[in-house]
Amino acid sequence: MTINPLAPASKQPTLGDYSDAEVQLANRNSGMPLEFLQHDITPVGAHYLLTHFDVPYVNSPDNWTLSLSGLFQQHATLSIAALQHYPVHHEVVTLECAGNGRACMTPRWPSQPWHYGAVGTARWTGVRLTDVLKDHPLAGGCEELVFSGVDRGADGGQVHHFERSLTLQQIDTLEVMLVWAMNGQPLLPQHGFPLRLIVPGWYGMASVKWLDCITAIDHAFQGYQQVRTYRYRRDADDPGQPVTTLKPKSLMQPPGLVDWSTRVRLVQPGTHRITGRAWGGCGIDADAGQGQGLVRGSGKGLGNELGNELGKGGGRGIQRVELGLNGDYHDATVTPSEHRYGWSHWSADVTISEGAHVLSCRATDAHGIVQPDVPTGDYNGMGNNSVQTVRIVCDGSVFP
Amino acid sequence: MTINPLAPASKQPTLGDYSDAEVQLANRNSGMPLEFLQHDITPVGAHYLLTHFDVPYVNSPDNWTLSLSGLFQQHATLSIAALQHYPVHHEVVTLECAGNGRACMTPRWPSQPWHYGAVGTARWTGVRLTDVLKDHPLAGGCEELVFSGVDRGADGGQVHHFERSLTLQQIDTLEVMLVWAMNGQPLLPQHGFPLRLIVPGWYGMASVKWLDCITAIDHAFQGYQQVRTYRYRRDADDPGQPVTTLKPKSLMQPPGLVDWSTRVRLVQPGTHRITGRAWGGCGIDADAGQGQGLVRGSGKGLGNELGNELGKGGGRGIQRVELGLNGDYHDATVTPSEHRYGWSHWSADVTISEGAHVLSCRATDAHGIVQPDVPTGDYNGMGNNSVQTVRIVCDGSVFP
Repeated sequence: MTINPLAPASKQPTLGDYSDAEVQLANRNSGMPLEFLQHDITPVGAHYLLTHFDVPYVNSPDNWTLSLSGLFQQHATLSIAALQHYPVHHEVVTLECAGNGRACMTPRWPSQPWHYGAVGTARWTGVRLTDVLKDHPLAGGCEELVFSGVDRGADGGQVHHFERSLTLQQIDTLEVMLVWAMNGQPLLPQHGFPLRLIVPGWYGMASVKWLDCITAIDHAFQGYQQVRTYRYRRDADDPGQPVTTLKPKSLMQPPGLVDWSTRVRLVQPGTHRITGRAWGGCGIDADAGQGQGLVRGSGKGLGNELGNELGKGGGRGIQRVELGLNGDYHDATVTPSEHRYGWSHWSADVTISEGAHVLSCRATDAHGIVQPDVPTGDYNGMGNNSVQTVRIVCDGSVFP
Repeated sequence: MTINPLAPASKQPTLGDYSDAEVQLANRNSGMPLEFLQHDITPVGAHYLLTHFDVPYVNSPDNWTLSLSGLFQQHATLSIAALQHYPVHHEVVTLECAGNGRACMTPRWPSQPWHYGAVGTARWTGVRLTDVLKDHPLAGGCEELVFSGVDRGADGGQVHHFERSLTLQQIDTLEVMLVWAMNGQPLLPQHGFPLRLIVPGWYGMASVKWLDCITAIDHAFQGYQQVRTYRYRRDADDPGQPVTTLKPKSLMQPPGLVDWSTRVRLVQPGTHRITGRAWGGCGIDADAGQGQGLVRGSGKGLGNELGNELGKGGGRGIQRVELGLNGDYHDATVTPSEHRYGWSHWSADVTISEGAHVLSCRATDAHGIVQPDVPTGDYNGMGNNSVQTVRIVCDGSVFP
């Protein structure tokens, strides 16, 4: 053997043009075209998709089971029909890939090269994980639940299933769902058919697809997708901090017409109404202590009031959006989402004169955190919430 | 004005890594992940998508109209409800982007950088264009119909709607459909909601989305998407030949597990069953003369028998598929599609030993045309049907 494909790839941040492997990923994984920001609920097929390995082929949900193993008081195997006996919830949730914006960073970590489109908002149908756990109590000593998908492949020198964990404290705080439908239809194969996790207010990696196993463990999970990636890291040697809640972010629908080759937008002189969306995870953590007693019988805490006020993530934690023309910002009108975890709508008028310009937008959350003008820098390109910039050329003569 | 975005871009074939504009296109336009070759009908949201400009926002189909203008005996405006009074057909059609494979070419035309995934098979529901034309006869002198979408943008120095034409002879021969549903559901916004054209057996550019106007003209249409692109060209000065029917092509579902970073496939030693699909436009042209009298009262011609024999495109025009291991090919078993315009299934066993290998597959159509080993070269990267190659590493020790 002259090739060991599982030797950890000697990847390092890169500059300039994109490799063939990056483009292969970009062709497989699909971003939401930004004109879809017009839709409150992203239409099926336009929601972003990041698939780590191959999409599993599942013919029918009838034989699918979710196993509860490890430190449960009793192991169990639940069919989807059994899960559907718990109270059914419909939750509008904005999801974003933790790597969204990676392609806008310099240097750039060589991975899926998202610009802005790795986001989407769907209406998910399923049950609360905590409702299921009431019937299936954990054994003493349990610290975390590990959520395993059936998808499997290699990354960083390890063959593994896609697996992520949440601590009991996080499960107590977050309104984690087990879902089987998206926008009123059974999950599509690529969105996790027939069962997936949704972790509202967190970046998308936590919402494990093709979920077939929950394992209760008494230690911090050390799986590849938990400790080797989805970490905020300064450099190659930094073990980093886990990627969790969404940072505040806003996006605009680029105005005017697109030029295919340059991706520049063409607009006519005059006043334009620019619209977009904004979201974040602000308020998610504030609810710590509100839980249902899963963890050490915790009752309501001070954080709860702040959590209610902020709306627990989604668009309600956004208190301000500004639209910039060549770096000169003014306030947009923000319409909060009707849904706890959905993005908010915003709009602003801007008068554009002939010439080349840059539009940008930035959100501020309820804690006063403002999107940065430039990426704050992360070794693996995680959580880049720097402002979107849109190059426009205003020239009335080019419109027939 | 120091910038004229509509000056024809000084694009030329390029080598090596990919530009930011190419990656922006790859993020917007989505390929079908190749594991979806398992599905006879590509699930919604996994079918390839190439959107020239922005996806139009259409709230409801109720007010949508299709106007018939130009050299019709009477101009008309048809609602979708009116179209639905004609006989409704459900047709399974394999569509492929004419630029599929462009990223595998050296040099490479800088545009949407597809590798293999710009293909999909859907069940389309609609009516035959020829049925509509019987009620809305053309005036004398008409030579072509121009199909216009509402999508608009700039390319090659021109602001234009996406528009394509077909000659009356082509309309008489091809089973062109006006469709409002895909896989049993209303068209998704990104697939042309609420109305689009489907031209079975041709590359995808002919199947105009967001169709709102058909104009009958007495000359050869000179629109940008007809004469400036979607041409087979040798060099920048070659006016080229129009891209029309699908060339024979086969794809395999890559076996084993994927390594995220390198995109290499990992397999265990032993015998593997490889499966895939094959399709082409063979037989489409053979039907010339079979038409319904739209053109000069033409009746059945000799071509008709060949057309029936070959199945008029799709998978039935494929007579052979071979699977290659390091360039050594052997025959696969081909199962013809049940549908005239759908892809055929194929499978072949291959024994793989430890080491690095390349798998490939190639189809031969009923005319004896074989997929080339290497791209035949086209200036704009159109119609590359050279064989798919999949790099695999066989190492039993890496599987836990």
